[in-house]
Amino acid sequence: MPPRNVVVAQSGGPTCVINNSLRGIIETARRRPDKIGKVYGGRFGIEGVLKEELIDLSASPAEEVALLRTSPAAGSIGTCRYKLKEGQDQDFARVVEVFKAHDVGYFFYIGGNDSQDTAHKVSVLANEHGLDLVAVGVPKTIDNDLGDAAFTLLDHSPGYGSVARYYAHYVRQANEENAGSCPADPVLVIQAMGRKIGYIPAAARLADPAREMPLQIYLTESGLSLQQLGENVVRQLESDGRCIVVVSEGFDVGEVGNVRDNFGHVQFSSSQQTVAQVVVNYLNTLKFPVPGKARGQVPGTDQRNAIAYASSVDLDEAYGVGCHAVEIALNEGNGWMATILRDRSGSAYNVRYDKAPLDKVANSERFFPKEWLAPNGIDVTDDFVEYARPLIGEDWVSVPTVAGLPRFARLAQVFAPKKLPEYVPQTYRK
Amino acid sequence: MPPRNVVVAQSGGPTCVINNSLRGIIETARRRPDKIGKVYGGRFGIEGVLKEELIDLSASPAEEVALLRTSPAAGSIGTCRYKLKEGQDQDFARVVEVFKAHDVGYFFYIGGNDSQDTAHKVSVLANEHGLDLVAVGVPKTIDNDLGDAAFTLLDHSPGYGSVARYYAHYVRQANEENAGSCPADPVLVIQAMGRKIGYIPAAARLADPAREMPLQIYLTESGLSLQQLGENVVRQLESDGRCIVVVSEGFDVGEVGNVRDNFGHVQFSSSQQTVAQVVVNYLNTLKFPVPGKARGQVPGTDQRNAIAYASSVDLDEAYGVGCHAVEIALNEGNGWMATILRDRSGSAYNVRYDKAPLDKVANSERFFPKEWLAPNGIDVTDDFVEYARPLIGEDWVSVPTVAGLPRFARLAQVFAPKKLPEYVPQTYRK
Repeated sequence: MPPRNVVVAQSGGPTCVINNSLRGIIETARRRPDKIGKVYGGRFGIEGVLKEELIDLSASPAEEVALLRTSPAAGSIGTCRYKLKEGQDQDFARVVEVFKAHDVGYFFYIGGNDSQDTAHKVSVLANEHGLDLVAVGVPKTIDNDLGDAAFTLLDHSPGYGSVARYYAHYVRQANEENAGSCPADPVLVIQAMGRKIGYIPAAARLADPAREMPLQIYLTESGLSLQQLGENVVRQLESDGRCIVVVSEGFDVGEVGNVRDNFGHVQFSSSQQTVAQVVVNYLNTLKFPVPGKARGQVPGTDQRNAIAYASSVDLDEAYGVGCHAVEIALNEGNGWMATILRDRSGSAYNVRYDKAPLDKVANSERFFPKEWLAPNGIDVTDDFVEYARPLIGEDWVSVPTVAGLPRFARLAQVFAPKKLPEYVPQTYRK
Repeated sequence: MPPRNVVVAQSGGPTCVINNSLRGIIETARRRPDKIGKVYGGRFGIEGVLKEELIDLSASPAEEVALLRTSPAAGSIGTCRYKLKEGQDQDFARVVEVFKAHDVGYFFYIGGNDSQDTAHKVSVLANEHGLDLVAVGVPKTIDNDLGDAAFTLLDHSPGYGSVARYYAHYVRQANEENAGSCPADPVLVIQAMGRKIGYIPAAARLADPAREMPLQIYLTESGLSLQQLGENVVRQLESDGRCIVVVSEGFDVGEVGNVRDNFGHVQFSSSQQTVAQVVVNYLNTLKFPVPGKARGQVPGTDQRNAIAYASSVDLDEAYGVGCHAVEIALNEGNGWMATILRDRSGSAYNVRYDKAPLDKVANSERFFPKEWLAPNGIDVTDDFVEYARPLIGEDWVSVPTVAGLPRFARLAQVFAPKKLPEYVPQTYRK
């Protein structure tokens, strides 16, 4: 069989190391000219496939592809939040049509649960329409909510180790600030991503595994109220004179934090007000036992693109799982997601790359284990620390700089010539 | 004359490199046992002096003091926002009393304009009361608003180079995120510190000196309105499909951004709502020419304590100016602030350490030069870039880690034995 082409696409929010899975796919594909022809990147994920905007990644020199190692987020080929929903038949048909037009034999989809399901559906449809297509999923999410509750399908997602390292360092530095400035600023509130799943705020504990800091961690899963948060903070101020609060962006601040309009209607929504601000405003209505006020900050997208904090372990694994996805595609065929499994036989941290059925992954759910939430509701257990600690790695990743600035990969913006009529993705139609 | 003791104290918000000025003072003092006895650190700045809480820095081993090099913020000895105001005679008298009780011959005050003035007043008063006291100021501020408009007293403040590097890297990374995610998140709003003086948001330009990014920078000094900001952003979306907005925390958002209570009264204040949130909320009422919404983030204190982004130049200079302050105290006597002046004779970046009279510094004001604001109001000029670029240094600073975490200095918490009755600082009295 002659070599077939590859399409790789990214989906959802980026991570610090997402480009390493891309790099793994490109570099592994280049070593198999017997089986693989061109490697195309969907410009802005599946949107680029729908619009037939395919970046010819084969046109980029190896040195530039190598720089993807320390290039965060998705500036290289882009990602999207476009979902191929059940019933969007024209979109699905269009993807197959584009793949046919460009002789695509392999489709790699780097993303979360939804994306793995989509990848599978696309391959089934393609095969029904006479296109021999192998779809393989590549896991990616900072939230670590991909896989199953028992960690048997996937131990952890590439992207999580780096955001965990971000918070380990962030909170450790914030503690220097809070400890040094506490007469003026005794309470620092930090809002972490992750909505309903608490792996990201939980990582704040990695900053202080010995529990020496006056650190309180509020996962959405804690079920605590804003009032309870306030009581906890005041208690911490009584004992330590200061407090660091890490709160999930999904923490339920209830009625108290709501802004009301002229008619008394609640105006609060997560897009108009941050949880951190609600918490700070509420805390500043309380009587503190020390002088000073609460202040808050929202790291935002920085937590998933601050390459200086990238975990070397995460970086290597994101690459490894990308390489492995290509091996799966060539040797195992259709319908798999590449996975990372931890060897639990010894005390040393070791992983191996494996595979899980796409449909099984798509139908799995991973929550933050209840038993890892500490009984006091504002901490996580040592079992969590044991799980997460190896993921942040040891020393710093070396990020190349030019003239004092990080030098990120700049892939050649060479597009595959279009062969099909224009197409407007279904969601964008009026 | 027998050796006299030193008190060093920090004042105001910390920086990434403030501990390097402290290190410079400690290490230089240790090399002069003929002149200098103990080195005490005021616990939480001048508050520690008033309360006679003096950390005996001579008790810390040299290796721990050396670690101050890569220890951000003021977790070592603390800082404060306590001001010795004109007329607080009891506070001034108490400082003199404490200095007398501990045979303090040298007082180093690391801080901004106000602190330099205070240092001078304390030394004058001490000398009037028969204590031979040499007070020397050490410049420190991330805002770079210390010194004179002509840059002849001080070229730049230690602390600014590191926050400038922070924004250079931060915005460069944010650009990877914004470029890669723009169909979903076309506008990213980033709030920078600095209130009325725009050096910090201006540093965002260092991320992109060639002006390749769709970057808009809103200094407070621009005098632009929220409406104009909105128009600019929409225009950028029309041309580039995306936009990065860096806005000063002091940017005047006017009436539009205000939250109103049930009576229609304006509830807005900077402590209850951030400028970034007001900007995001306003932008999301506008009709964008692309899909997606604006999102915002607030780096907060992270911008002054993220040691990974510390500028090697800033780090060395903060140390150098601390060392120089001790030399001034020993050789030049009372009433000076140690300074950094730039050699403008060649194209290479070179500085020398010098001194300026404390009272002259205290009465000087440094604004962001009007001529460095670009005519379009949303950028800064190449003259600013030329000024600021050398301050961010070249390669990364190497921060020692242990078990994946940065290892910060832990100075021995040995206090000088108290010799005086308790004292409540005037501001804290009921």
